Amino acid sequence: MKVACCQIAPRVGARGQNRIAVREAIRSAVDAGARIVVLPELSTSGYVLRSEAEARELALRPGNDAFDDWSEGAARGDAVVIGGFAELGDDDLVYDSAAVVDASGMLAIYRKAHLWLDEPRFFAVGDKPPPVIETRAGRIGVAICYDLFFPEVTRDLACAGAEIIVAPTCSPVLSADVTNADIGIAVVRAAAHVNRVFIAVCDRCGTERGTDWAGRSVIVDPDGRVLSGPPGDRAEMLLADCELALARDKVVPGTANDVFGDRRPELYGLER
Amino acid sequence: MKVACCQIAPRVGARGQNRIAVREAIRSAVDAGARIVVLPELSTSGYVLRSEAEARELALRPGNDAFDDWSEGAARGDAVVIGGFAELGDDDLVYDSAAVVDASGMLAIYRKAHLWLDEPRFFAVGDKPPPVIETRAGRIGVAICYDLFFPEVTRDLACAGAEIIVAPTCSPVLSADVTNADIGIAVVRAAAHVNRVFIAVCDRCGTERGTDWAGRSVIVDPDGRVLSGPPGDRAEMLLADCELALARDKVVPGTANDVFGDRRPELYGLER
Repeated sequence: MKVACCQIAPRVGARGQNRIAVREAIRSAVDAGARIVVLPELSTSGYVLRSEAEARELALRPGNDAFDDWSEGAARGDAVVIGGFAELGDDDLVYDSAAVVDASGMLAIYRKAHLWLDEPRFFAVGDKPPPVIETRAGRIGVAICYDLFFPEVTRDLACAGAEIIVAPTCSPVLSADVTNADIGIAVVRAAAHVNRVFIAVCDRCGTERGTDWAGRSVIVDPDGRVLSGPPGDRAEMLLADCELALARDKVVPGTANDVFGDRRPELYGLER
Repeated sequence: MKVACCQIAPRVGARGQNRIAVREAIRSAVDAGARIVVLPELSTSGYVLRSEAEARELALRPGNDAFDDWSEGAARGDAVVIGGFAELGDDDLVYDSAAVVDASGMLAIYRKAHLWLDEPRFFAVGDKPPPVIETRAGRIGVAICYDLFFPEVTRDLACAGAEIIVAPTCSPVLSADVTNADIGIAVVRAAAHVNRVFIAVCDRCGTERGTDWAGRSVIVDPDGRVLSGPPGDRAEMLLADCELALARDKVVPGTANDVFGDRRPELYGLER
């Protein structure tokens, strides 16, 4: 089972251009054999917005025909595509969302539940937990970027049966990164390891309105081992073979320890 | 505030010799200015036991005068010492425990709640959560080795106010390590980062009955940055300056994001 992360460089405001870039990325990944294709956060709109009005103008309804491109791309190889987009919801609010699409159309939409930096200025916050979607390519947990920094999210997704967690992401280069640049990768590897689940993070590259993007896409296995990435700040398609069935076995190889069976839920979350 | 991890090589069965090694390690650390001194797991007994009977023979009652050494060492510099020992409990069961000792004597004992590999053959499992101990050197969360691989543990300790989590540890070299040797360090860095807390892991070195120890002691800051370690398989005292007050601020530097304030507990742990 091949998994692809399409690290591309969406441009804020260039909705038509982004549509083409996303379509091409999906096609390339599916034609390379990927059954799960992950795109960056806000890949249709770009990220560095100036106002809620701009976010709204760039947002797509879930029925937008841009997603027909995703379906057509998926149909080339019975793939599932997960990508970030600015969503104009049926409640008329704008969300930082991820769409899950296969050849049959839209399977699910998830609205980011943990907003980062300026995102609350532009987006409403999701009020549903990150979901696990049963797809033809496996049980896929969906989170978006900062969601991954809440260990409850990855734990819950794995406990709910996710074999792979996919995360459309936008990682800016931060000043703190100078001596700690790989901490985001460490967080992803740790979450994979303690939950024995695959994780595919699709980050972006390029520069937008003065923000430099870090290009920290990565695919890791249930040991927390890096299978592919991070490429750094350049467009690249990561591709990794992920035997998703491995994520159904929670026993640490070479031991009798089961990372779920060994949990002590009766000792967690107690008042102190 | 200096924190020390005394990576030593206890020898299984050599209780008298281990007592001396531990006493010397505490003295050296306190004399070097450490206010928090961490020792490995099972530092008084050694780790690679053959039977429950051997564990019982090597176990110490909490009132054992070996701990007077710890208190005397702590008193040299108003320090707190946290170390692993095989405990013979008042219930006559044997536990893989950690003692927290200062100049006034025994402050707390924690019994490991997640047992690893063969430990269930030798030890009863603890039935209390890892604690946070208010000490003269700060609010110290205590876990032991495999406990750290449960994100609930580190989250709960940080939420309960731990400024630093200390973890007596024994990490064997595993065959899976060849391509993933730093995953334990990644787990510790991630836990520190997502909870904005210091973590000091005191591992051991040496060889016991054919088991090679990895020597992965490490001290990390609330960004998840490594301050000291890991030294690998050799005796070494890690020493790091840890401004514990930093761990009371849960805001990610350079952002308005608060890693605790941004949590969405109403979305976690739901039935699916």
